[in-house]
Amino acid sequence: MPRHITSFSNDTVKRLRSLREKKARRVEGLFLAEGLRIMAEARDAGVLPEIVACAEGDIHPLAAEIVAQAEAAGAEAITVPDEILAKMSGKDNPPLLLGAYRQPRLGLADLDRTSAPLWFVAERLRDPGNIGTILRTGDAVGAGGLILVDDSADPFSVEAARASMGAIFTQRIVQVPWATFLPWLREGPGQLVGTSLQTTHDYIGPAYEQPCFLLIGNEQAGLPEAYEAECDLLVKIPMHGKADSLNAAIAAAVMAFQVRASWR
Amino acid sequence: MPRHITSFSNDTVKRLRSLREKKARRVEGLFLAEGLRIMAEARDAGVLPEIVACAEGDIHPLAAEIVAQAEAAGAEAITVPDEILAKMSGKDNPPLLLGAYRQPRLGLADLDRTSAPLWFVAERLRDPGNIGTILRTGDAVGAGGLILVDDSADPFSVEAARASMGAIFTQRIVQVPWATFLPWLREGPGQLVGTSLQTTHDYIGPAYEQPCFLLIGNEQAGLPEAYEAECDLLVKIPMHGKADSLNAAIAAAVMAFQVRASWR
Repeated sequence: MPRHITSFSNDTVKRLRSLREKKARRVEGLFLAEGLRIMAEARDAGVLPEIVACAEGDIHPLAAEIVAQAEAAGAEAITVPDEILAKMSGKDNPPLLLGAYRQPRLGLADLDRTSAPLWFVAERLRDPGNIGTILRTGDAVGAGGLILVDDSADPFSVEAARASMGAIFTQRIVQVPWATFLPWLREGPGQLVGTSLQTTHDYIGPAYEQPCFLLIGNEQAGLPEAYEAECDLLVKIPMHGKADSLNAAIAAAVMAFQVRASWR
Repeated sequence: MPRHITSFSNDTVKRLRSLREKKARRVEGLFLAEGLRIMAEARDAGVLPEIVACAEGDIHPLAAEIVAQAEAAGAEAITVPDEILAKMSGKDNPPLLLGAYRQPRLGLADLDRTSAPLWFVAERLRDPGNIGTILRTGDAVGAGGLILVDDSADPFSVEAARASMGAIFTQRIVQVPWATFLPWLREGPGQLVGTSLQTTHDYIGPAYEQPCFLLIGNEQAGLPEAYEAECDLLVKIPMHGKADSLNAAIAAAVMAFQVRASWR
């Protein structure tokens, strides 16, 4: 049975709240996911929270089920008033359920590159919303996961988990320097594909290979030239307007759906 | 010459700050855009701010040019310390330039539907970031603009302007109830295309017509059945993962690039 807590200064409440900060997430190795939809995705993927907080009073049967399963697996469960949930989630209109999950800390050696036809590789992404959206798109296109290269925003931030809509529990996530990624890539099969304005190759037409590693550049600067030079294929998404770039998560999705279309 | 202002309680400072709130934007008919890149896009599109604030001290030559042009056109210009810019933009690391622009309030009668091959129509979008991202994608695919149907987030919010990366100045934006949009659509040429899970039509393959109106549903609920029923064509974007939906701005982009690809 969940303990009922009404104090903001309770240790579990403070611990959950602290996970909104990157430093606390790193120290604890945990991250926050919010809401029944995302937490049900997690459960369906076999992942349960280590700490779970839910609203007091009548609770959705699916939420009750997740809380009971988490408790059976050793999780700490609490019920709290809405004000505390609002404080934890940073939203006036808080979710009714919130959980702290263990961060899966994977290295490249944990990836089976042939387990999926497509992988995202993103360089120095700054916006956690973009990271979460790319994870969500990765699920939709049947990608294996997202390799975050160099210094990127935290994929386990609240914003990233929220934008992923649960894909944070199913897509594999690795954080690694480029100098580590590149030798690993070259040890096995894999076509590295980048988008660039410096090429005349249209993104529609090429024979994309499997596994295809789609390389996405930083939101402001795009890909460094040295990284472009390592690509097996550089392609261009045509621009018909005044600007010369797409949002990074949009470019990733347009490329990924075209790569999949090329395999039909 | 810009006036130098150092007080947070100055009327112009307070007026600019107030534009972060929807109510003030509606009353004033203005909206905020931030940063040299976006404000240069605006200028290149022939749009100048009515109020402009820039950092004190040495100023980028392009920023100086925009400030001078705005003043010549009758704008009020001020220079302010970084703390005031930070307060106005809500960012610790504020942009060096910030402007208040007149909201173009357009109706359907202002649109020439044959001026572009593609238009976005979005129903009850809740996330201003999605609206801005769709505007940015609209520029990239050569769309005419975005028709926001029913009650949506404010396309002139700071978040939407920021995510649009300047496309807010080049894409036409209309806000209108569905009951007004549909009769207008049927008065002239135009194929209404929706994405749906209720169809077996793959999104790759159909002959999309011009002008094509791409209908995007609300982030949580998708399109209402009654709106789907009005579509000339319903197509499905295949999902290869566990979830059954894409981010709204991602779905819009994947569709728009496929529609353009079908016209090659």
